[in-house]
Amino acid sequence: MNDLYLRAARREPVERSPIWIMRQAGRYLPEYRAVRQEVDFLTLCRTPELAAKVTLQPIERFGFDAAILFSDILVIAEPLGIDVAFSPGPVIERPLRTAADIERLRHDDPRESLAYVMEAIRILRGELKVPLIGFAGAPFTLAAYMVEGKGSKNFATLRSLMIADSPLAHRLLERITETLEVYLLAQVDAGAQAIQLFDTWAGLLAPGEFGEFCIPYVKRLIEKVRERGVPVTYFAMDGCHLLERLPEVGADVLGIDWRTPLSMASTRVGRRHALQGNLDPTALFAPPAAVRERTTAVLEEARDLPGHIFNLGHGILPDTPIESVEAVVETVRATAERS
Amino acid sequence: MNDLYLRAARREPVERSPIWIMRQAGRYLPEYRAVRQEVDFLTLCRTPELAAKVTLQPIERFGFDAAILFSDILVIAEPLGIDVAFSPGPVIERPLRTAADIERLRHDDPRESLAYVMEAIRILRGELKVPLIGFAGAPFTLAAYMVEGKGSKNFATLRSLMIADSPLAHRLLERITETLEVYLLAQVDAGAQAIQLFDTWAGLLAPGEFGEFCIPYVKRLIEKVRERGVPVTYFAMDGCHLLERLPEVGADVLGIDWRTPLSMASTRVGRRHALQGNLDPTALFAPPAAVRERTTAVLEEARDLPGHIFNLGHGILPDTPIESVEAVVETVRATAERS
Repeated sequence: MNDLYLRAARREPVERSPIWIMRQAGRYLPEYRAVRQEVDFLTLCRTPELAAKVTLQPIERFGFDAAILFSDILVIAEPLGIDVAFSPGPVIERPLRTAADIERLRHDDPRESLAYVMEAIRILRGELKVPLIGFAGAPFTLAAYMVEGKGSKNFATLRSLMIADSPLAHRLLERITETLEVYLLAQVDAGAQAIQLFDTWAGLLAPGEFGEFCIPYVKRLIEKVRERGVPVTYFAMDGCHLLERLPEVGADVLGIDWRTPLSMASTRVGRRHALQGNLDPTALFAPPAAVRERTTAVLEEARDLPGHIFNLGHGILPDTPIESVEAVVETVRATAERS
Repeated sequence: MNDLYLRAARREPVERSPIWIMRQAGRYLPEYRAVRQEVDFLTLCRTPELAAKVTLQPIERFGFDAAILFSDILVIAEPLGIDVAFSPGPVIERPLRTAADIERLRHDDPRESLAYVMEAIRILRGELKVPLIGFAGAPFTLAAYMVEGKGSKNFATLRSLMIADSPLAHRLLERITETLEVYLLAQVDAGAQAIQLFDTWAGLLAPGEFGEFCIPYVKRLIEKVRERGVPVTYFAMDGCHLLERLPEVGADVLGIDWRTPLSMASTRVGRRHALQGNLDPTALFAPPAAVRERTTAVLEEARDLPGHIFNLGHGILPDTPIESVEAVVETVRATAERS
């Protein structure tokens, strides 16, 4: 069992930074595209054997130090009674706009409606020799999609609602958080050894709004998962202006996107956290020598952190050359041999 | 002549913060929508009398302290020989992807192909009792559109090109900068009393890339404009992680988006600049009392700045209620009476 990822997440001594890559099971892999020729995205998420199969693909090919369950943050819409399509981004035909829309949300048990996720986790734990990361979207990010109905540059609909009727926004966040809590603990019970919360749109908020609409919900979820002894990573994308407040969520690991150098992030969040990141995904379009150089630069930035998990600063891009991923992995591994 | 804006931009004493609003001539105004029912967006940009007319609308309605020319950052594509459509965002059917595409760019004189802009400026200077701001997109942001072909969350195409073939990316930025220089000086010659450079996508870059691909070009443009005695505002959207480097561009005023409190921005950029901003545009969906409160909070944040120009932290949203804008303007004006 390779437990490098778990030790780094807990700020225990490690030989080198563990590495995994956001969206590591995805379109840049020919073996993933082969599966997707047979089934659509939602069917893939909902078929435990197939979800497990694509989760394993990048582990088998690159030997990453952690696997992340193949799924989508918006599967949680199902127990809430919201229909989501993917074309390819999420589209919600009837977005939540009124108090009645929010009162009407269902309270299905995600252990039942999302049983396929837990089944995929159980299959994977039988196969994997590296830790398995479960995940969910953070409440604000999920609410942003559910209120807007689709991806957006600004998610102004939810942000306007937060200002025009903040109690209603809080009711929605509360409802999402309740269902997420059951869902995340079910993932842990099924065998997820770590959890990552993706707060992809948190960076749209100023620190005050972040404090009001993100921190309390995220904190509660993280507490519940950590009570089970499972480490949690919180990734607030584009969150440079939030760095001073990130420690309040109580995560073990903070994800940092490619924009903020790890040394700057570390100075501003303090030294009680492991950091995860943050090679620019577009750097993987450079020739291999340059990829190695940029990877080394990230490792240098991370040298004095209390814990570091190597990752990209955002999901890997669909056209990324396989050789670049190989160059990254080799470079991260080589640090162990050097030290 | 109300020169509050120009004095604040130059960090001279002012009775209160001047106010204008990004996209103040736009869809939230019924009188603007009435004009747009008659003509499409590009025709409006290209007809000096109409461009001048809509530029004046928000000045007449709200008495803002500065007017900004109604135009679009992508009109500069015309002298470069690139076709742009608006539907409603910019769409470039044949985006620049190869060295040949970039070599093929035209060197038309923007004083001729964009003569309609300079004509609109001349008309406006005959009408206005407040300063007129001319503007352009910054080279990186324009290149991002020209290479991607449309709006994008990540503008990964240009960012990948910058890494895979940085000399080619620099050739493109150089070509855009050459044409922008002529264009901006022509705006000044026609009567623009201040210039704002919009670097809407600069925030996608880490500080190192910002230093390589933005700063030199922006700095050169700002120097040229400032040699004519005209103050320049540089607005790098979502640039919290770039704050320490922003002073290098040599602007008079730095625009700050809604995410970063002005006091935090001021601490990190130092005290040699006026700051512009930064009420969250979504705050204008709150009831008037809350709008006034949020406006006051921004003014409080700005109290000790060496210079402050009140603005939103991003363009005003199309559905914004007129009463909210009135509440903002009254609140900013009231500070003069109080002090």
